[in-house]
Amino acid sequence: MAFFNANYQKLSENYLFATIEQKVQAYKAAHPEKKVISLGIGDVTLPLPKACLDAMHIAVDEMGKAETFRGYGPYEGYEFLRKAIAEGDFRSRGVDIAADEIFVSDGAKSDTGNIGDIFAKENVVAITDPVYPVYLDTNVMAGREVKVIPCREENGFAPVPPEFHADIVYLCSPNNPTGSVLNKKQLEAWVDYAKKNNAVILYDAAYERFITEEGVPHSIFEIKGAKECAIEFRSFSKTAGFTGTRCGYVVIPKELMLTANGEKVSAASLWMRHQSTKYNGTSYIIQRGAAGIYTPEGRGEVEKLIAAYHKNASIIREGLLAAGFSCSGGVNAPYIWMKCPQGLSSWALFDNLLEKASVVGTPGAGFGKMGEGYFRLTSFGSTEDTVEAVERIKKAFA
Amino acid sequence: MAFFNANYQKLSENYLFATIEQKVQAYKAAHPEKKVISLGIGDVTLPLPKACLDAMHIAVDEMGKAETFRGYGPYEGYEFLRKAIAEGDFRSRGVDIAADEIFVSDGAKSDTGNIGDIFAKENVVAITDPVYPVYLDTNVMAGREVKVIPCREENGFAPVPPEFHADIVYLCSPNNPTGSVLNKKQLEAWVDYAKKNNAVILYDAAYERFITEEGVPHSIFEIKGAKECAIEFRSFSKTAGFTGTRCGYVVIPKELMLTANGEKVSAASLWMRHQSTKYNGTSYIIQRGAAGIYTPEGRGEVEKLIAAYHKNASIIREGLLAAGFSCSGGVNAPYIWMKCPQGLSSWALFDNLLEKASVVGTPGAGFGKMGEGYFRLTSFGSTEDTVEAVERIKKAFA
Repeated sequence: MAFFNANYQKLSENYLFATIEQKVQAYKAAHPEKKVISLGIGDVTLPLPKACLDAMHIAVDEMGKAETFRGYGPYEGYEFLRKAIAEGDFRSRGVDIAADEIFVSDGAKSDTGNIGDIFAKENVVAITDPVYPVYLDTNVMAGREVKVIPCREENGFAPVPPEFHADIVYLCSPNNPTGSVLNKKQLEAWVDYAKKNNAVILYDAAYERFITEEGVPHSIFEIKGAKECAIEFRSFSKTAGFTGTRCGYVVIPKELMLTANGEKVSAASLWMRHQSTKYNGTSYIIQRGAAGIYTPEGRGEVEKLIAAYHKNASIIREGLLAAGFSCSGGVNAPYIWMKCPQGLSSWALFDNLLEKASVVGTPGAGFGKMGEGYFRLTSFGSTEDTVEAVERIKKAFA
Repeated sequence: MAFFNANYQKLSENYLFATIEQKVQAYKAAHPEKKVISLGIGDVTLPLPKACLDAMHIAVDEMGKAETFRGYGPYEGYEFLRKAIAEGDFRSRGVDIAADEIFVSDGAKSDTGNIGDIFAKENVVAITDPVYPVYLDTNVMAGREVKVIPCREENGFAPVPPEFHADIVYLCSPNNPTGSVLNKKQLEAWVDYAKKNNAVILYDAAYERFITEEGVPHSIFEIKGAKECAIEFRSFSKTAGFTGTRCGYVVIPKELMLTANGEKVSAASLWMRHQSTKYNGTSYIIQRGAAGIYTPEGRGEVEKLIAAYHKNASIIREGLLAAGFSCSGGVNAPYIWMKCPQGLSSWALFDNLLEKASVVGTPGAGFGKMGEGYFRLTSFGSTEDTVEAVERIKKAFA
C-alpha cells in the first residue's frame, strides 16, 4: 500500500492564504456588486520596472534564434545575475559576499520551504510566533520538532534568543507579519546564540528593500561571525514586483559548515546537490528580467516602487493611529500590524471587515497563537484603494 | 549542532550531468582549438516556437501595465494553460483528464523530484535499471528503500513487473536513457501489478511527443484502471524547447487515493498542499509561453521541431547501424542507446570519444549498473553537428 507522508495530517487544515482566498471568493460570489479591496495576501499591484521588461523582451527574442537560444542553465543561476546581486546587494553596501555564494531560485518561498531538505530530521527548530506559516508547515511536513519563541508587543515584537537549545532558527527581518525589524544589537545576540548552540540561522530578508531607518541591518552578514552560522533568503517579489514573475535567491557563505556522522560538509555544497537533483535552474528569461533590477534605470524604478508602497504604508499607519486604532510596523516594512479593536478575535475582525467594509486583511491568528488579537494589513494595494480601505475600516468601527 | 541530512552521504559522489560538465570543461580548457559536439545531456538546440515567443512578448507587456499586471498566480497554474493541456494532450486523444487534475510546474525534474515529499518514508520504491538518476537520488535523499528492476536487451529494455512488492514504481516511457517504449500490453501488466500491490506508478512521459509508432500509449491513462493508481509527469522541455524556459506539469487523477493511519486522502489534495506551501506558482510569462504550444501555429511549429530531432535520431541510428555498431531507441524517443564497442566500459567510451572525436555522450553506467556497456546519444544537436558527430564516432573506431 502506498502510504502518504503522515506528517501532512499534523498540518493545520489549510494554508492560511488559501483559506482567505476561499472566503473572499465566496463573498464575491454572494456580493457581485461590491468592490473588494485586498490588503491581505501581500501581493504587489504596481507593474514591473521597464528595465526588467526590456531585458525580458530581449531574452525572449534570444530564445527565438538558434545562435542565441539558451537551453539548460546553471543550477545555481547565471553568473550575470549572481555577479549583479553580489555587487548590488552586498559589496556596494560593504558586505563581503561573492557571486559563488549566491543561488538563484524562483522565489524565497521555494527556498525557505526547500532548504529543510538538506537538514537532518533530528534538528530542533525554533520559529517565532507570530510567524510566516511556511517555516512551520515545511518543518511539520518533515517531522521536525518545532519550538516557539513568542514575540510580544512590549518588546516591539522582536524575538529574543530563548533559554532552550535549538539547532535551526528562523528569523525574518523586516518581519512578516509584524513589520518590525531587528537592530544590530538584537541580531548580534542571535549570532551569539547560534555560535553557542552550533545552530544555523535561516534569515529571511525578503523585505530588506523596505528598510528606511539608518542603522538597521539590511543583511545578517553585516554582523561579525554570521557567515559561519547563517543562510540568508532574498526575493524580488516585493522589491521589484516579481510575485507573478518569480525570482529570488539564497546566500550560503562558504564558511558555513554542517555536520553528520562526524563529517563536516559545506552547506553550500549540500544545497548545490539539492538544486542539481530537484531543480533545473530558473528560467533564463526571468533571470534576465531580474538582472534588469541592477541597471541604473532599474534601480531608479525600484526606488519609485518602494516609495509608492511606503506612501501607502504611511496612509494606513497614520490613518489608523489618527482614528484611535493601535498599530505598528509600516516604517521599515510593507506590513502594518494592527491591534484588533473591541476585543475582537482576528478571524472575527477578518469576517467583520469583509462583510462590513469589503476589505480583506490577514488574521493574526493565521501566523500563530501570539498573532491572535492582531491583524495584518499590507501596503501593496493601489494608493487609491489604500485610502478607500482605511476610510472603510474607520467607518466600519465608527 | 545543526546536522545535515545524512542521507546525502549515501548519494553517489556527484550528479551525473554535473560530472560530465566538469570533464567537458576540462577538455575544452586543454583543447581550446577543438570543436566539441555534445550529444550528451539531452539539451535541445532549436529555438522556441514563434507562437511561444509571441505569447511571452504579450505577457511581458501585460506585466508592464497596472491594468494587466499579474501578481501571485494559482499554485496549480493558470486555468488557461490547464484547460489547453487537458484538451490538447488528453481529451483530443480520447483520454479523460480534466483541467483540475493538472498541476503546472517549472519542469518535470522538479515534479519527479518533489513528488516524494507527499509519500511516507516507509514506502518501498522500485526503479528500473538503467534509470534517470533523479528517481534514485531523490529517494536516497528521503531515506527510502529502493529496489531495482533490471531492464535487459533481450526484452527490448522494457521493465517487467517484479516478484517483489513495491509501494511506488517509477516508469519512464519513452524511456530515458534507453529510448525504448512500453506498449499497451506491457503497461496493462504494470497497472495490474499496481492494483495487486496497492502501489502507485509514477509515470514519466516527458518524451511522449516523440512517439511515432501506432499503438504505443502516449499516456498511462489510456490504460483502464490507471487513474486509480498512477501519476503522470509531462514536460515542455523536449516538446517545445523549454529546457531553459522551464515549464512542465503533473497529472494527478481525482480517483487516486493514498492512505496513512487508516485515513484515505486524495493524492491531488496532498500535492496541492505541498505546492501551496513550498511553491508559488510558475511564472505567468512562462505559462503564457507554454499555452502558445497549444495554438494551431504552435502545434505546427512543435511538429517541425520534433521532426527535426527525429531526423537527427535517424541519422545517428542508421549511421551507427550501417557502420556496424549495435544500438536501439531513436524511433519513439530522442535517445539512441548504443552498445559500447570493443568491450569498452561506458566511462572509457566517454573519455575515448571526448579525446578522439571531441564528441560528448552519456555513459550508461551513470544510469545504473545495467547501463554499463551502453552509451546514450541524443538527437538534440543541430543536424549538421549530428552528421559530423556520427562521422567522427565512425572514424574514432575505424
